[in-house]
Amino acid sequence: MNEDKLLNKEKKLDYVSANGETFGEEKIIMIAGPCAVENKEQIFSAAIGVKQAGATFLRGGAFKPRTSPYSFQGMGIEGLKLLKNAADYANLKVVSEVLSISQLEEAIPYCDMIQVGSRNMQNFELLKAIGKSKVPVLLKRGFSATFGEWLYAAEYIMSEGNCKIILCERGIRSFDPTTRNVLDLSAIPVVKEKSKLPIIIDPSHATGNKNYVEALSLAAVAAGADGLLIEVHPHPESALSDKDQQLTIEEYKNLVTKAKRVALAVGRTI
Amino acid sequence: MNEDKLLNKEKKLDYVSANGETFGEEKIIMIAGPCAVENKEQIFSAAIGVKQAGATFLRGGAFKPRTSPYSFQGMGIEGLKLLKNAADYANLKVVSEVLSISQLEEAIPYCDMIQVGSRNMQNFELLKAIGKSKVPVLLKRGFSATFGEWLYAAEYIMSEGNCKIILCERGIRSFDPTTRNVLDLSAIPVVKEKSKLPIIIDPSHATGNKNYVEALSLAAVAAGADGLLIEVHPHPESALSDKDQQLTIEEYKNLVTKAKRVALAVGRTI
Amino acid sequence: MNEDKLLNKEKKLDYVSANGETFGEEKIIMIAGPCAVENKEQIFSAAIGVKQAGATFLRGGAFKPRTSPYSFQGMGIEGLKLLKNAADYANLKVVSEVLSISQLEEAIPYCDMIQVGSRNMQNFELLKAIGKSKVPVLLKRGFSATFGEWLYAAEYIMSEGNCKIILCERGIRSFDPTTRNVLDLSAIPVVKEKSKLPIIIDPSHATGNKNYVEALSLAAVAAGADGLLIEVHPHPESALSDKDQQLTIEEYKNLVTKAKRVALAVGRTI
Amino acid sequence: MNEDKLLNKEKKLDYVSANGETFGEEKIIMIAGPCAVENKEQIFSAAIGVKQAGATFLRGGAFKPRTSPYSFQGMGIEGLKLLKNAADYANLKVVSEVLSISQLEEAIPYCDMIQVGSRNMQNFELLKAIGKSKVPVLLKRGFSATFGEWLYAAEYIMSEGNCKIILCERGIRSFDPTTRNVLDLSAIPVVKEKSKLPIIIDPSHATGNKNYVEALSLAAVAAGADGLLIEVHPHPESALSDKDQQLTIEEYKNLVTKAKRVALAVGRTI
Repeated sequence: MNEDKLLNKEKKLDYVSANGETFGEEKIIMIAGPCAVENKEQIFSAAIGVKQAGATFLRGGAFKPRTSPYSFQGMGIEGLKLLKNAADYANLKVVSEVLSISQLEEAIPYCDMIQVGSRNMQNFELLKAIGKSKVPVLLKRGFSATFGEWLYAAEYIMSEGNCKIILCERGIRSFDPTTRNVLDLSAIPVVKEKSKLPIIIDPSHATGNKNYVEALSLAAVAAGADGLLIEVHPHPESALSDKDQQLTIEEYKNLVTKAKRVALAVGRTI
Repeated sequence: MNEDKLLNKEKKLDYVSANGETFGEEKIIMIAGPCAVENKEQIFSAAIGVKQAGATFLRGGAFKPRTSPYSFQGMGIEGLKLLKNAADYANLKVVSEVLSISQLEEAIPYCDMIQVGSRNMQNFELLKAIGKSKVPVLLKRGFSATFGEWLYAAEYIMSEGNCKIILCERGIRSFDPTTRNVLDLSAIPVVKEKSKLPIIIDPSHATGNKNYVEALSLAAVAAGADGLLIEVHPHPESALSDKDQQLTIEEYKNLVTKAKRVALAVGRTI
Repeated sequence: MNEDKLLNKEKKLDYVSANGETFGEEKIIMIAGPCAVENKEQIFSAAIGVKQAGATFLRGGAFKPRTSPYSFQGMGIEGLKLLKNAADYANLKVVSEVLSISQLEEAIPYCDMIQVGSRNMQNFELLKAIGKSKVPVLLKRGFSATFGEWLYAAEYIMSEGNCKIILCERGIRSFDPTTRNVLDLSAIPVVKEKSKLPIIIDPSHATGNKNYVEALSLAAVAAGADGLLIEVHPHPESALSDKDQQLTIEEYKNLVTKAKRVALAVGRTI
Repeated sequence: MNEDKLLNKEKKLDYVSANGETFGEEKIIMIAGPCAVENKEQIFSAAIGVKQAGATFLRGGAFKPRTSPYSFQGMGIEGLKLLKNAADYANLKVVSEVLSISQLEEAIPYCDMIQVGSRNMQNFELLKAIGKSKVPVLLKRGFSATFGEWLYAAEYIMSEGNCKIILCERGIRSFDPTTRNVLDLSAIPVVKEKSKLPIIIDPSHATGNKNYVEALSLAAVAAGADGLLIEVHPHPESALSDKDQQLTIEEYKNLVTKAKRVALAVGRTI
């Protein structure tokens, strides 16, 4: 396969738009929200807070991929409905993860963009179904996927006719337990060299530690990221999952304020 | 979660049987066959050859997980039918991989055991469907999965009522391109300590190089593996995929002869 | 060992100064120069160029650690003398790597700061000798060292009475050959949390590809790096080593211009 | 550099002998002893025990490479003297690690073979000094070294005229904390393909857990290892370092008994 023949390199930029928000342009898109939708009060508080801070997309897991079958698995379709209601109330767009083709069909009515998580980056049947659905998709890098494997995963979606793909680097697995994963910011220049797809960064899953999220968010903006996906919870200390990595709304506001300055320094806006 | 409460530790050994062949007993089960089913002549030659060498299971990919959508994707259901016919002719059992729930339903009539590949080890919806189906399953370790994640993936299947699981170590991703992956044989004592599930070894995908398969097969037997999954092709040089790692039938026979001696030395048979 | 008792946490900031240049203050220190000192013309051109661009330290390898004994091993002490002359001419400070205690003694008269490279991060006898010498030291992270191992390596130097240590993240080894290493920018917030030592970033060795150096340099500044160590060569295409990762002087000037803007955005200067 | 021109491929087998014991022949050489020499009673008990079990080399650390400068650093030259006395008493050969050129000179009178540890595999000045000394050397693979880097490290020693090198695989760093490292047994067939140097296996440091040592020792023998380096301590529970991975003498005897059977099965002896 000639690498220059890949759809990653050839396609027009119809893939960067997710219901009005255009990824890959001057504006850096802010996606924020809790790890999981937990209840109405929580997701509405989160939505209002991240909107005020400058976010345009609300995230929140309804179908959660958990290592153990005995951990909280998410609220499912009821969670999606709450997420959509909260987003509508706060005038935000919605992105949420699906783990299977049947969940994809259930989720599409409630989502502006569908997330394929790290563990499913090479779930090829799911990728093909998303390709056929034409729904905008946020495709996370597998936690041990090479850049080539990641871009070929996007190619699975594109070759079915769907080019509305946003790539998301979220950390790769390595040997040091200090951080949950290692955020590989070289993804930004590498993807820009090898693909026309926009790329955003998730520093929350990458580090697993809220103390490291701000520094890496600013780094991502400086390196040219087209968006930031950050976990924000109104009360992180009582979150049902990933409590160590979620920012408070106040912390998120501070982060966005600083990120705006860095964005300006590299000719972008937030 | 108390680790001692896991089904991995508690379950009776009803999970070790795959249609008459019992994994985890004195006899080490030999599974062999080509990377992919390619045509009738190829799969019948492979079946006859590996049967003569001492195998009891025939493997062969019909639904192939490929990095690129433009690579050979397998023959699909026609491949499964050929695989089943060849196995019946040679009096072998059948194992083949599925990538999705719909392929699972298609494949069950033709398979004695279903393989979940490395990329799908945390495809939780597929795991749950396999759990409900009660079909025997060969669960490969994800190429960057911890032992804990692997045993919890088995737990997803078991918690749906299906304990007929055989674990398969197939190499983990690392930094040295000399071998495709690094075969982690500590999987054998670790799994025996933390689970009652049988464990087999796939040295072919681990190394990606036929020159290294025999040494690691003998090592696996000595370390206590309950089976070996080895790629064998009647004409490896013309294989449609993974040609560097597939043994000829003659090479496989030699390997089995040597493996029998090592098996005896550790109180097992082949 | 109680982590709070480590010298990393307790010591006063006498360690941040390297002959007048103070690391860890508002100003971000720029270190630049070729991979190796090759000849007088090359190192003087490099020195003049990086000085004009804004660097205050000149780097250049005289004792080169090379994988193969048959590769160019550096000019040795003659290289150090050229490096020192060029730095004096351009009014720059000097940093260069040593691989052994005897090279350390030879190098000290010509260097303002000594570099301990990635392969020698746990060369404990060398660390202790540097500790006794009291020379300022740039301590690179081992390419597979945990943060704990790195800070304990610094502790070896400090416990001999030398606290003039600058830590340098230069990429860790991982599975994707697209970049030579993976630059782990979480090093910046992690080190700031666990130590009082300043930390600088080397994006050149991390990526091994000049096309990715600028994006990661800006990222490092945004994340709070106290300095940047960048390979610059007057004629990279004819370099004797690492030609793919060295910037031209013009490229370096552009990088510094951009880095200054990002520095201002995070309250620093260059 | 043409790989076929390397000394690894060309040299006659004068390098396999370490004072009478010949590595790389039919007999698999057993090296055993405690992590560190701690006192006279301990090292004599260890020596007598491992001799009875079938070992021919006594190991024991006198100069210990420790992550923290505040951990037990070994007994130094006094430890070496005890080690030599115990080995002489039990009619064993001696191997011990050095960390620097000055320790090398101190250690040579007491050692039949010098060990270069994992952290020093690319301590090129030490390698060159060992090359000049002509002392037999056990060269451990760096915990993140590629096979190429390892064989080039051997090449540094050989190019100084010393071909008495035994390579030792001791596990590589990876992502799963269940075992300290991942033992890469593909090292055996890879080294046999790319070099004429003998290769031995250290399952103790690889796993860091005595429960996994026996299975991997048998695996190593089956895969063609030329020797086994195993940590044995008369009282592991009170060891000053690495207590979790050291076998009792009784456990070691059982291991050797089983290893002999596997050795016979692959045409070797112990």
